Amino acid sequence: MHSIKQVLDDTALTNTTVTVAGWVRTFRNDRFIALNDGSTIRNLQCVIDQEQVDAATRARFTTSAAMKCTGVIVESKGSGQRVEMQVTAVEVLGDSDAEKYPIQPKKHSLEFLRENAHLRFRTNTYSAIFRMRHQVSFGIHEYFDQQGYNYFHAPIITASDAEGAGEMFQVTTLPLEKAPLQLREDPVDYDLFTTVRNDYASQVAATIMHIVENSGIDKKAAYIFADSLMYHIKLEPQKLMMASEKMTPEKYNYSDIARRILGEMVPIVYQHLMAGQVGDKKLSDYQLEVESICKKHGYTLRRRIGGYYERLFSTEQLPMHGLAFHNIFEIIPGKVDYEKDFFGRETHLTVSGQLQAELAALALGKVYTFGPTFRAENSNTARHLAEFWMIEPEAAFMDLQGDMDLAEGLCKHLIARVLKNSMDDLQFLDARLKEEEATKPKEQRSEMGLIDRLNFVLENPFERITYTEAIDILLRSKPYQKKQFQFPVEWGVDLQSEHERYLVEKHFKKPVIVTGYPAQIKAFYMRTNGPGDLGYTDKGKTVAAMDVLFPGIGEIIGGSQREERLDVLEARMKEMHVPAEELWWYLDTRRFGTVPHAGFGLGLERFVLFVTGMGNIRDVIPFPRTPKSAEF
Amino acid sequence: MHSIKQVLDDTALTNTTVTVAGWVRTFRNDRFIALNDGSTIRNLQCVIDQEQVDAATRARFTTSAAMKCTGVIVESKGSGQRVEMQVTAVEVLGDSDAEKYPIQPKKHSLEFLRENAHLRFRTNTYSAIFRMRHQVSFGIHEYFDQQGYNYFHAPIITASDAEGAGEMFQVTTLPLEKAPLQLREDPVDYDLFTTVRNDYASQVAATIMHIVENSGIDKKAAYIFADSLMYHIKLEPQKLMMASEKMTPEKYNYSDIARRILGEMVPIVYQHLMAGQVGDKKLSDYQLEVESICKKHGYTLRRRIGGYYERLFSTEQLPMHGLAFHNIFEIIPGKVDYEKDFFGRETHLTVSGQLQAELAALALGKVYTFGPTFRAENSNTARHLAEFWMIEPEAAFMDLQGDMDLAEGLCKHLIARVLKNSMDDLQFLDARLKEEEATKPKEQRSEMGLIDRLNFVLENPFERITYTEAIDILLRSKPYQKKQFQFPVEWGVDLQSEHERYLVEKHFKKPVIVTGYPAQIKAFYMRTNGPGDLGYTDKGKTVAAMDVLFPGIGEIIGGSQREERLDVLEARMKEMHVPAEELWWYLDTRRFGTVPHAGFGLGLERFVLFVTGMGNIRDVIPFPRTPKSAEF
Repeated sequence: MHSIKQVLDDTALTNTTVTVAGWVRTFRNDRFIALNDGSTIRNLQCVIDQEQVDAATRARFTTSAAMKCTGVIVESKGSGQRVEMQVTAVEVLGDSDAEKYPIQPKKHSLEFLRENAHLRFRTNTYSAIFRMRHQVSFGIHEYFDQQGYNYFHAPIITASDAEGAGEMFQVTTLPLEKAPLQLREDPVDYDLFTTVRNDYASQVAATIMHIVENSGIDKKAAYIFADSLMYHIKLEPQKLMMASEKMTPEKYNYSDIARRILGEMVPIVYQHLMAGQVGDKKLSDYQLEVESICKKHGYTLRRRIGGYYERLFSTEQLPMHGLAFHNIFEIIPGKVDYEKDFFGRETHLTVSGQLQAELAALALGKVYTFGPTFRAENSNTARHLAEFWMIEPEAAFMDLQGDMDLAEGLCKHLIARVLKNSMDDLQFLDARLKEEEATKPKEQRSEMGLIDRLNFVLENPFERITYTEAIDILLRSKPYQKKQFQFPVEWGVDLQSEHERYLVEKHFKKPVIVTGYPAQIKAFYMRTNGPGDLGYTDKGKTVAAMDVLFPGIGEIIGGSQREERLDVLEARMKEMHVPAEELWWYLDTRRFGTVPHAGFGLGLERFVLFVTGMGNIRDVIPFPRTPKSAEF
Repeated sequence: MHSIKQVLDDTALTNTTVTVAGWVRTFRNDRFIALNDGSTIRNLQCVIDQEQVDAATRARFTTSAAMKCTGVIVESKGSGQRVEMQVTAVEVLGDSDAEKYPIQPKKHSLEFLRENAHLRFRTNTYSAIFRMRHQVSFGIHEYFDQQGYNYFHAPIITASDAEGAGEMFQVTTLPLEKAPLQLREDPVDYDLFTTVRNDYASQVAATIMHIVENSGIDKKAAYIFADSLMYHIKLEPQKLMMASEKMTPEKYNYSDIARRILGEMVPIVYQHLMAGQVGDKKLSDYQLEVESICKKHGYTLRRRIGGYYERLFSTEQLPMHGLAFHNIFEIIPGKVDYEKDFFGRETHLTVSGQLQAELAALALGKVYTFGPTFRAENSNTARHLAEFWMIEPEAAFMDLQGDMDLAEGLCKHLIARVLKNSMDDLQFLDARLKEEEATKPKEQRSEMGLIDRLNFVLENPFERITYTEAIDILLRSKPYQKKQFQFPVEWGVDLQSEHERYLVEKHFKKPVIVTGYPAQIKAFYMRTNGPGDLGYTDKGKTVAAMDVLFPGIGEIIGGSQREERLDVLEARMKEMHVPAEELWWYLDTRRFGTVPHAGFGLGLERFVLFVTGMGNIRDVIPFPRTPKSAEF
């Protein structure tokens, strides 16, 4: 059997008999099957002899039906293809009921196709995208292999969240509906409420018993009531209302506080009980009294509103226990007992493999990662995914200049590769984009087509400027003068999308690499610039960072030279509240044979967006993961 | 700057001046630095002129110190290297305190190095392993690219757990210590216990009040006690002990059941209360009495042992509430409200990308995945990881023969590649293995060295046998006759490691592909064999599965032709309790243009084990994830 790509490209096959298999794209004039097998966007025209194939069989040549055709490859009389097949034998491998097949032979919206992502690979647009995604992915491996880099698999599950690159997904084998909890051992400062240390719980309980037994309440009722209170004291980490300052055992006498407040509460509760005001009385009915008691003793009562228990039960459902501890004092759940979790500790999905890649680079010299990374950010935009693929090279003995060269070299290698290997798919996507652009108002249309744009990026060096220069350009720009920028422009603030787009699309009209960003807007591991370093300025502390900005995409690569000086790194971590003890292994590389090194991160999907001309990141990954969506 | 690999390999560099940088492996005779930069396992000997470098500087040439050396490359007078560097300038980039550096220049155990995984890349063994891991990884991409396969990124986070390939990790953004719960709306059949519908809770509560008020107990105590019971009834989804058959509101009168049991329980509890037997009495003291009441009414009491609350509190801590509902009746927590989770549903880490890869293959023709997969199995063995990398090709129009050819072709491509590109590293690992083998008893030593073994596998076709033939061979084998096999050998049971090893290591002495396994021990998606199919037998139903078994490793590849016939697939899913409605998208590919197709899964780490000769899978992945271990 031959692939359709082979049949269409290999002139030696003309006038020979071959067999192909694929899916019907269209069936025209009861004679011409356009067959596609995924090997290329081009279809093979298979011409049926109506006398050999009966009408019942021909009726099965519906869109997406699978068939096997054998026949002679001949030069095509029709336009649009060099050769076609004169079919001598045909077999339907799998029918496709035209009435039920979701993707009809008409133009569907991308939204509709996203909902049918399991079948969208069968359309021209998506098959082109995913063949190109392969070309880009393989090109990445090829580039780094050629440059002597080792493919390094950073761990996906990580116990480290020190990089702080956004919200993370938790990974666990604990049952969510009843995760094992442990009592908090230390008091926790939590707004106005503080947990009671476990070793004080029995002291508090004993105090309450004493109060209740001496409160004049009927002994049996008191006993039961006190026990109910004790129960709630003991339930998970216990709470007593306290001043918001940090409690220490020396500073407060818990039993004294408990006695003072509870000693006055219990009789009131009992009084209501006796008056039969329990069953249908609302919590708020008691609130004033309890508040006034607390106030008298110098504490502010803060009732939990919209909290955990109140979501489970309405106050009407809690007549008696509405008076008990958990409604007056906030119950903070115990800490989850992570020793019982699979890894014996709290673990998350990685947001970046960089720190681990540094460990390997500082021994193997050059490594790169290529793996999935995750952000649990609730961003429903055309540029964000919760799960995406990232490439992170890291090289010892490389400085920021080398980093920029590596990044630019990679982008150009990939663009050259798709121009060489994906021209069929590019032509289709180029035409698709032109069609889409034509629907836009004239001033919003891009000046160049997809292929032109790729060639332009390939042929021109990326512009390299410092952040300080970028700010100067922006301050002199028309949109700034005309107050058309939404966000402020001044040295020290981060560049916003509108600023990046101005630099790339209006000012330089090509990819731009910005270096030397202010330290305060960049990560702790980036190297602090000194006099003579690229991007150094007397306007403020800068770091050896670099962002590569692409037209239409914005930041496609973010990288930096890493801070290799232990003392500088430690000072910066302290400044940025990064816990050094959690990153002992990272710091070890600076302790033992530290060297200058650098690296960057490239978002695969953003690059695929650029080379395919697509606008929504959900269209360039097979099964996008976004808030509220994890189908297939 | 040059890499050390360049300097050692490029004869044109002899007698020129070059600069290299790397880490000191050893410093001998106060003169000879063995410098390594990770580009190769070989070191560059850098010869210092003692008159140019003062003693204080020389004292800094400690193991793992980083340095930059400039000098002339000359032919080496010493043995073991072709060239060496006559150093003219030297700079210490980063010191390494010999007293503190964890990896001393001596032989460390692999266990010790695993604990220092952040630095183990700096040893010969691990740098060789991770360079070879790159060669294997790149070789995989290269092989599939050459064969026209598209790299396909299957989703890592998945809402589908239908494949049932083992325990999964949950992915969530819900807080584990207080995940939002929702009341169960329907009664749930749960062993002997069934939840009470929320709308019946008040009915039950009213009944209890009635019982207690008429029980002759002191009114106030009764009131409080009943309320305590009510509280527990209302706590989360509520439980009443019931017969195990499914409850419907029509079938049972809840209040009647509650009255009958509770009506007799309450006085007993009160009696103990009155006798002062509450404070320090154990739950088990009451159990017999309560059991007999339940029995009389036709219900079996099943006390919770080792359950949730008992893990939180000892029974001593629950004097009164030990008598309350949650200790007598099991409390099932509410269902987690996954609509509040990030994806709006329960999600896990993938165990395989195969099902999704099939979707793409049935449009693009040929795809392969290469990504991390996860198993939350509590296996602490030298062969299991919780996180590992898997390669899963999938091709339309491919049958089982083609699948076997693809698998064998891949293995041989990779072995040829490492023999070509990794000979330095292989020679080191070969010698390492010989040393290790020498410590074993003679009869346990392998007959071939590492390189010999790789050549042998490369040069010989894999043996291909059916499962039925494998069983016949095993039944005729010496170990079977001598009853040396621990596990039974008979048609229908799965092959155990001891059987696989006999076939591969003793009988055939080369890789073996076993096909046509019994259907009942294989997955639902494998194609059912009919007469004429490879592996068909009248001994029982078989499927078109294939396992590739390697010496020393066992199963390294598992694959199959997939069941493309909708009716056969649906019947088999029903038989194996795979929920068809969850896999609607998978079944769609069989509904619309289904075609024969096949694929397999290769565990990257197992393959790297084979080509490196290592014995523990934790030594061939940078940062292993195993039960209780997620360091770095």
